Amino acid sequence: MKAYILFSGGKDSSLCSLMLSKFFEINLITCTFEVTNTTSILSKEISNILGFKHSIFKLDKSVLEEASDIILKDKYPNNGINYIHKKALLEISKSNKNSIIADGLRRDDRVPKLSVSEIRSIEDKYDVCYVSPLMGYGRSFINMMINKFFVIEENESKIIKKCDYESELRMYLYDKIGEQKTDNIFPKSHMQSRVISIKKNI
Amino acid sequence: MKAYILFSGGKDSSLCSLMLSKFFEINLITCTFEVTNTTSILSKEISNILGFKHSIFKLDKSVLEEASDIILKDKYPNNGINYIHKKALLEISKSNKNSIIADGLRRDDRVPKLSVSEIRSIEDKYDVCYVSPLMGYGRSFINMMINKFFVIEENESKIIKKCDYESELRMYLYDKIGEQKTDNIFPKSHMQSRVISIKKNI
Repeated sequence: MKAYILFSGGKDSSLCSLMLSKFFEINLITCTFEVTNTTSILSKEISNILGFKHSIFKLDKSVLEEASDIILKDKYPNNGINYIHKKALLEISKSNKNSIIADGLRRDDRVPKLSVSEIRSIEDKYDVCYVSPLMGYGRSFINMMINKFFVIEENESKIIKKCDYESELRMYLYDKIGEQKTDNIFPKSHMQSRVISIKKNI
Repeated sequence: MKAYILFSGGKDSSLCSLMLSKFFEINLITCTFEVTNTTSILSKEISNILGFKHSIFKLDKSVLEEASDIILKDKYPNNGINYIHKKALLEISKSNKNSIIADGLRRDDRVPKLSVSEIRSIEDKYDVCYVSPLMGYGRSFINMMINKFFVIEENESKIIKKCDYESELRMYLYDKIGEQKTDNIFPKSHMQSRVISIKKNI
């Protein structure tokens, strides 16, 4: 059975892929709004490091617009990011029925987060198994596993080159409302990571 | 690093062990109040089938008494079972500091269930990583994995030979308040399972 993993190039979605690879054929999928081509280039690069199949999934620009409207109304990013994540899960499930759809969400993540009824609705609608393999693990366990398998680069969200929704959202908002206003909306110190090499053969 | 898994002989804790075995040295632990010796005999037998190390952990009878008091007051078993599970996690963490303590709880389980603050309290107190590897998975995914790896026997809680808290709780309450009153407290149709053989080499 095939597992399609929402892949941001970060340590969590990389570890999620590794854990599922012991049991399933892994297909990484990176979503983009094509605000920048960094998303496509970088995610392909990190997928090659991990040695898993990879594809790009273009999400409709209207999803980004709706998410940025939510964020500007809320003045914080959580609900907007959640909105994108749900839309991404729905679209990928729709395109890959009868398969496993996975993400790298963890026990300690506050966002994105799906309720049990939202999960069941996706599963029933598209006959998929939606799984979050890291959901039963806390920060210390996950860090231990990551240090065992990967070399990662860690820095502020604003600085690190990444291929997640937040990076494209930020760039979109820079254009729309300017850099200073955007930076005020996102948390000041938000460390992000990406895998730069693997320590041992997966 | 060693992983200690609360092991009931059922399909969930067996699958949990299998999944962690790809990364850690597995030590199954079955808790008993010694209400019956079935717990010890059966859990050892199923551990041998799985091929993992196994030990018995004696929980204090006062925990069973307190749990049965809770259940008789509530007139349903959830809080009592939760109480035993937390005590078991605490005791096993205390005896195995600096290790991984795991259970087979799933996304859809209503009981036992720990809050994030209860989890953090155990982790901080005994320097363990408490993990529930199946927490990110729904029923259909778990059933698929179980069918891939195990042959299981499934029947009503009351009939199937098992080595979980509920079996000993029921037997203790049979003695205390009689069979009919006990059966009225526990849900009428509650399917339980145990592994009887493995399909492919783990």
